[in-house]
Amino acid sequence: MTGPTHPAPEPRTPTPRPGGRSARVRAEVVAATLAEITEKGYDGLTVEAVAARAGVHKATLYRRWGGVDGLVADALTASADQAWPLPDTGDLQQDLRRITREVFSVFTDPELGPTPTALIFAAQRSDAGAAALRAFFAARHRQAAEVVERAAARGELPAGTDSAEVVRAAVAPLYYRLFVSDDPLDARTAERAADAAALAARTGLFAPTSPAPEQN
Amino acid sequence: MTGPTHPAPEPRTPTPRPGGRSARVRAEVVAATLAEITEKGYDGLTVEAVAARAGVHKATLYRRWGGVDGLVADALTASADQAWPLPDTGDLQQDLRRITREVFSVFTDPELGPTPTALIFAAQRSDAGAAALRAFFAARHRQAAEVVERAAARGELPAGTDSAEVVRAAVAPLYYRLFVSDDPLDARTAERAADAAALAARTGLFAPTSPAPEQN
Repeated sequence: MTGPTHPAPEPRTPTPRPGGRSARVRAEVVAATLAEITEKGYDGLTVEAVAARAGVHKATLYRRWGGVDGLVADALTASADQAWPLPDTGDLQQDLRRITREVFSVFTDPELGPTPTALIFAAQRSDAGAAALRAFFAARHRQAAEVVERAAARGELPAGTDSAEVVRAAVAPLYYRLFVSDDPLDARTAERAADAAALAARTGLFAPTSPAPEQN
Repeated sequence: MTGPTHPAPEPRTPTPRPGGRSARVRAEVVAATLAEITEKGYDGLTVEAVAARAGVHKATLYRRWGGVDGLVADALTASADQAWPLPDTGDLQQDLRRITREVFSVFTDPELGPTPTALIFAAQRSDAGAAALRAFFAARHRQAAEVVERAAARGELPAGTDSAEVVRAAVAPLYYRLFVSDDPLDARTAERAADAAALAARTGLFAPTSPAPEQN
């Protein structure tokens, strides 16, 4: 389910020439969109305010982004494109702990947290945003899956382990609290989520060829 | 975080006399609110449409529910009050599988799924809704925690296991897909989420007195 609106088409996003004026404009517009969403939320987001903050003509924004939903979608796409450092401690449990601690640290930080939080809620408000949100999490899962693939290569995991599924298992308890149940989130919870995912992976729960182990 | 709006005050909800006219009116208004949200979403929800569908005077709705956000909050409160059957198979893993399969079945059912999905997204749109959403999930966690407490009483789990935390671990991968990452959800994923939570619980991950086990 993609949110209140279904189904989600591809978001309308520009294809800037890297380093060119188009890329600079996009960076300014994305930054302005994030700042506006953080301050005012989706309901307060207007093309006019983003244009004024970015110093770009309103007509340019409508032409290239289509409107507020295209701006939200492109802000997510820009975030998904940003590389982020992957841990490589040589141990799956420790790598997953670094990843869940990073999610915990970003979203609960009073300075850093409000922007990605507002962006995710804003993206849920349109088809274009929901499609960009799906692509964003898919990209994050793919990127983080590398720590699981390394563990498999080290022989830590059963053959055929679904690496993206291990990542989802590790981060799900955090996002569930942040965006669904609104339970408090602390560092211990983030650590436990990583430990539970590593334990399940080593036991073979994410190796589709093996049946789920009966524990009694 | 409660959504785009913070902080969340208590939702304004009536206190009907059970079985009385007030209770019947509330039941009709809740049913009408759920039907309207399912058809039109939060953005299309109006007190007028709910009043017309419920056959209740608009003034009564404004007086007792305050507006659309009070209607959404009370629809969630009414859902949280509804008892639901708890599995009791005599085995934690099997009980948790029944619970996650129930979540999977309800939300992915073309007939049953759209209403709770729309209700959760609608609740995220206001402080009153967010507070009711928190209370709804807290009540569900408390109710389902009974299967974990039974397992602890049977000696399946270490002393001091956080029963609500085991429930959150079991359902988080499902709600993460449904309301955050929008990854596809299938029966195997629901089963795996239960198995991983049961495994982590038996290993002592949710017993705060015991440190997280180092797996290497």
